[in-house]
Amino acid sequence: MDFTEEQSADVAAASFDNTADPRLKEVMQSAVRHLHSFVREVRPSTGEWEKAIEFLTAIGQACTDTRQEFILFSDTMGVSMLVETINGAGGELPEGDAARPTAPTVLGPFHLTQSPEHELGDLLNTTGQGVPLVVEGRVTDPAGKAIPGARLDTWQADGKGYYDVQLEGGLPEGTGRGLFTADDEGYYWYRSVLPRYYPIPVDGPAGDLVLRAGREPYRPAHLHFIVEAEGYQPVTTHAFVSDCEYIERDVVFAVKSSLIRDFVVVDDEAEAERFGVSAPFRHVRFDVVLAPEEG
Amino acid sequence: MDFTEEQSADVAAASFDNTADPRLKEVMQSAVRHLHSFVREVRPSTGEWEKAIEFLTAIGQACTDTRQEFILFSDTMGVSMLVETINGAGGELPEGDAARPTAPTVLGPFHLTQSPEHELGDLLNTTGQGVPLVVEGRVTDPAGKAIPGARLDTWQADGKGYYDVQLEGGLPEGTGRGLFTADDEGYYWYRSVLPRYYPIPVDGPAGDLVLRAGREPYRPAHLHFIVEAEGYQPVTTHAFVSDCEYIERDVVFAVKSSLIRDFVVVDDEAEAERFGVSAPFRHVRFDVVLAPEEG
Repeated sequence: MDFTEEQSADVAAASFDNTADPRLKEVMQSAVRHLHSFVREVRPSTGEWEKAIEFLTAIGQACTDTRQEFILFSDTMGVSMLVETINGAGGELPEGDAARPTAPTVLGPFHLTQSPEHELGDLLNTTGQGVPLVVEGRVTDPAGKAIPGARLDTWQADGKGYYDVQLEGGLPEGTGRGLFTADDEGYYWYRSVLPRYYPIPVDGPAGDLVLRAGREPYRPAHLHFIVEAEGYQPVTTHAFVSDCEYIERDVVFAVKSSLIRDFVVVDDEAEAERFGVSAPFRHVRFDVVLAPEEG
Repeated sequence: MDFTEEQSADVAAASFDNTADPRLKEVMQSAVRHLHSFVREVRPSTGEWEKAIEFLTAIGQACTDTRQEFILFSDTMGVSMLVETINGAGGELPEGDAARPTAPTVLGPFHLTQSPEHELGDLLNTTGQGVPLVVEGRVTDPAGKAIPGARLDTWQADGKGYYDVQLEGGLPEGTGRGLFTADDEGYYWYRSVLPRYYPIPVDGPAGDLVLRAGREPYRPAHLHFIVEAEGYQPVTTHAFVSDCEYIERDVVFAVKSSLIRDFVVVDDEAEAERFGVSAPFRHVRFDVVLAPEEG
């Protein structure tokens, strides 16, 4: 079989026919076919192909122990969110009156350090960089039954858009991070600061492409959560701040309408005193529904 | 528009709508659509997606000043050959009795140093590592008219499968490389050694994938050529040795039947003396047809 434009995908796919691992064979043959379809569609010049090689090489070379530029590229191409959506339980239709399990979204690149163990009600951020925030909610199954002892891992940027691991902000490690255990009613609460939107890194090839595409490099303000409980499927998700200016155009496509919450302004001294914060503060309710384990 | 599996490609493609450069917009929107089709087809688990990220990162990190692992990956996926085929003039049907222009094939990773200027008939390889070889041919247009002064850049592995830039062989730089100028009849000739097949590097992620796929990592024996002349489209091509055992299964898909030549064994002292080599030697005729420049 000669290598022609028409036969190239067949020839290259056939070279993987003897792959011992059936899944590797399936993935590589699919990759070959889609890659060749792409090339036949855009018909790159040799110079454009060279630029693509240089771009992918630069992405790989920008990766370090604390930076994963290929994940950032996957995120900004919508691939990470697609993989998350395919694997998440959140898309399943519930039966009867049951609630839909909380939708998953991307993990993101900032879950780099272990979140410190906290008691319910603890203050996650003591820096004063941001409006006081009270977060509360319940973890339940789709029927609304409490899941006592559910574990919540949360992490977030501060009021200036910085995570503790980004040394620009000079935040002590663990700031804005916490591991919580829900009580017997599945209830949890804690205090922190209102997170701000923030830009993805634009000093590397993935961020540079976003700018060249005329895209805004911002992630709308959000709280991260991983919620787990024995007998249930864990969920990696966000609670998005509804009045953030970038809520409609997340550069990594992670916003789902079911995850947007009003972070309500409360200017009431009695309420502030009840939660141990100063007024005015923001208050959000974020209930989490976990799907039972399959099988 | 919510990010669902069905809408993901539309949502991610739309994020490139404001790209100022129309070609970049076209390429990225096509890339998004094909990438999302691939992901929807293979439905990777989160762990598989992580493996893919690690694989691509390792390819980028394996690149150095003297090694381009992403080109190797492009080569072994058949993408380099597809791009070469799309851009080459060789596929065009000639008019009437005219000859088809010489088909293009991959540049490969070993065109790293400037080939030294040589006189017609010069010996390219003085190491004695390989059977003596005489190469001759004519450079013409499709009608058979000589192209006087055509420039031929040639480079090749030796009889053990090594290029000069691969220090394993310890070959002096420029060994097996030459720049020639065809004479008034478009004729060229030179002496060298018969090249051997050789493996692509398998100590990096691209070669490792080839082995895991049960593929043989070899390139069949060949001579490289870039042939250029004013008023004509240049061609990057190979002359393949017909009796090489890997001629039917080049790991980078570069073999085209029109580029295979018999490297004839000549065991004749008079002929050997005429060419200034020792008998027995190999002899190949490789004529090159250049297409006129377009426009």
